Amino acid sequence: MDPDAVAKAFVEHYYRTFDGNRPGLGGLYQDASMLTFEGDKIQGAAAIVAKLTSLPFQQCVHAVSTVDCQPSGPGGGMLVFVSGSLQLAGESHTLKFSQMFHLMPTPQGSFYVLNDIFRLNYA
Amino acid sequence: MDPDAVAKAFVEHYYRTFDGNRPGLGGLYQDASMLTFEGDKIQGAAAIVAKLTSLPFQQCVHAVSTVDCQPSGPGGGMLVFVSGSLQLAGESHTLKFSQMFHLMPTPQGSFYVLNDIFRLNYA
Repeated sequence: MDPDAVAKAFVEHYYRTFDGNRPGLGGLYQDASMLTFEGDKIQGAAAIVAKLTSLPFQQCVHAVSTVDCQPSGPGGGMLVFVSGSLQLAGESHTLKFSQMFHLMPTPQGSFYVLNDIFRLNYA
Repeated sequence: MDPDAVAKAFVEHYYRTFDGNRPGLGGLYQDASMLTFEGDKIQGAAAIVAKLTSLPFQQCVHAVSTVDCQPSGPGGGMLVFVSGSLQLAGESHTLKFSQMFHLMPTPQGSFYVLNDIFRLNYA
């Protein structure tokens, strides 16, 4: 499968899960996974899900603007770089964000998120 | 050396070179290096430098807002995620940008850029 199509499918799945069933994101991370969220560093699937489900907003909708991807080296991984905007429930304006994922292949032929860095783009 | 300090030193060096001696960036890339610049995909140090030196602005100043880094896996690499703003010569406003680098160790104990993805953050 074309890497750009894999990246796009991952990104759609990730934000659909984030917006609709945030605890379901746990299946995308493993113990070695790292998240840096607005500068906060978290490691491991359980801690990452705890962080993402405790953010100070319950409902949100992500809209993706751009998805770029590159192979990350001989390990078969893929880097995915996303820009987009985030609408929080009850807020009229949107927040712009940038996020990168380092996806690594699993023995089952799928991918998990090894690295995840998220930043809001303050105006 | 602390990874955050390495990342910060790399970022300072990268943008100082970009703003002061753009052709000098060639030493930071290798033949396997990839750049995705606003969606354009370029591979190899020579082609990347040709792209960066042919951008439609001669002088610019980068100001870095945030630097996040994570180890990228068993290969000893490091992911560096930057947000900042870019001031072009003769323009009064600045452009916000986000950029990620995947740094890989060299046998000489330094790093080269294997992956580089750049996006302007349109308002």
